[in-house]
Amino acid sequence: MTCRVSIIGLSKIGFVEPRDSISKLIVDAARAEEVELADSDVIVVSHKIVSKAEGRLVDILTIKPSNRAKSVAQKTKKDPRVIEVILRDSKELIKANREALVVRRKDGFVCLNAGVDKSNVKGDTIYARLPENPDKSATKIRNEIQELTGRKVAVIIADTYSRPNRVGQVEFAIGISGFEPIIDYRGHKDLFGYQLHYKYVGFADEIAAAAELVMGQGVERTPVAIVRGLSRIKRANAIGLSKKLTVEGNRDIFYN
Amino acid sequence: MTCRVSIIGLSKIGFVEPRDSISKLIVDAARAEEVELADSDVIVVSHKIVSKAEGRLVDILTIKPSNRAKSVAQKTKKDPRVIEVILRDSKELIKANREALVVRRKDGFVCLNAGVDKSNVKGDTIYARLPENPDKSATKIRNEIQELTGRKVAVIIADTYSRPNRVGQVEFAIGISGFEPIIDYRGHKDLFGYQLHYKYVGFADEIAAAAELVMGQGVERTPVAIVRGLSRIKRANAIGLSKKLTVEGNRDIFYN
Repeated sequence: MTCRVSIIGLSKIGFVEPRDSISKLIVDAARAEEVELADSDVIVVSHKIVSKAEGRLVDILTIKPSNRAKSVAQKTKKDPRVIEVILRDSKELIKANREALVVRRKDGFVCLNAGVDKSNVKGDTIYARLPENPDKSATKIRNEIQELTGRKVAVIIADTYSRPNRVGQVEFAIGISGFEPIIDYRGHKDLFGYQLHYKYVGFADEIAAAAELVMGQGVERTPVAIVRGLSRIKRANAIGLSKKLTVEGNRDIFYN
Repeated sequence: MTCRVSIIGLSKIGFVEPRDSISKLIVDAARAEEVELADSDVIVVSHKIVSKAEGRLVDILTIKPSNRAKSVAQKTKKDPRVIEVILRDSKELIKANREALVVRRKDGFVCLNAGVDKSNVKGDTIYARLPENPDKSATKIRNEIQELTGRKVAVIIADTYSRPNRVGQVEFAIGISGFEPIIDYRGHKDLFGYQLHYKYVGFADEIAAAAELVMGQGVERTPVAIVRGLSRIKRANAIGLSKKLTVEGNRDIFYN
């Protein structure tokens, strides 16, 4: 049988405001677009609408930069108030240059500018921070969708990431609920019976990257995608699944 | 209109031998599975079957390791003959430890073990090297599919990559033919008229990652996937498109 995966964009979400219910917006948009949600669908949600709904927007006019933020701002020629917002969400500043700050966020992810971002946010001085706890946000959306529709979906909160050694950004899964984000082939046999030692697939990141193919980058007005037909999906109920993708505590063969 | 992308796996490719025609195997498998190829389809092909067809398998029993390979082998506790094969495909050895070698390949990609890999290759001492020039391999497959079917498809040769700062491997596009691998949003306006400065999407890598959702890792016997319905695809005819994704010559904000 031919294996097929479908990626279905939801473009009738509209503009999201603080305190909006993301799950209700998704369920309503799916109905309006005549897409019936199904068990084992993975719903990929742009972090930006989650940040907006959770009130994670910050007006930098209200921010008083610390001395450290001022010093980094001087070095990088950036706005010290934006630097301050980035530093507040970070536990380690790894590099800073005119293009961006490379930080380890409080949740362990290494990324640029701690995910603090101006794009697709209304107001010249308004920036979006990432959701406070993307795994929790994903779980809330998943549980509410089950209440609203009876469907046992899985949820990914996705953000756009730059990658070392590689040009171009792709979506990563920063919040995960309802399924195992990694597929572990280690110890399995390959086509010829050779035991695999290293295959350890970043399944959730692949799903997030696939979703971008219909979601685009904001201007496409498609902040949600449904990924359907994943034969290898395996349910998981733990909270904090995105941690399985962070290198912290693990060895990083590129650096050590 | 709801935007949909489909990912269709081809599982009737069978075992590939040296001098097999990959394009013919793809066209025959598509027919056998009643999938009609269409203009603007992106055909994602596992590098492993391309390497096999191009005779890029090497029996390490035939390899005489250099002194340098012996020295790296001693440090990493690996087989000096395998190290020799890796070094021959590399222009820079960045790191070496017991888990893997981090190298810059001759084509500029930074990756583990220069892509030299034992999995899904028959014979205990046989390893696969990457295709000599994956962009050329992709172009050959693309041109031949057009000759066989009249369809103007695009082609990606994909390989499994480990990523710095992130657990789990995903597919990357190492050979590209027929479309622009990057979507450049810089200078475009976002939802609220703010000019985007950094958005530069690694489209080809996202397509490769999406294809893995049906291709799996060999044991699934699905070395080819068709990705259909990409609204942002833009034709390109240049040779060497994968170079647009390599950081070499560009600045890498994570390291500089």
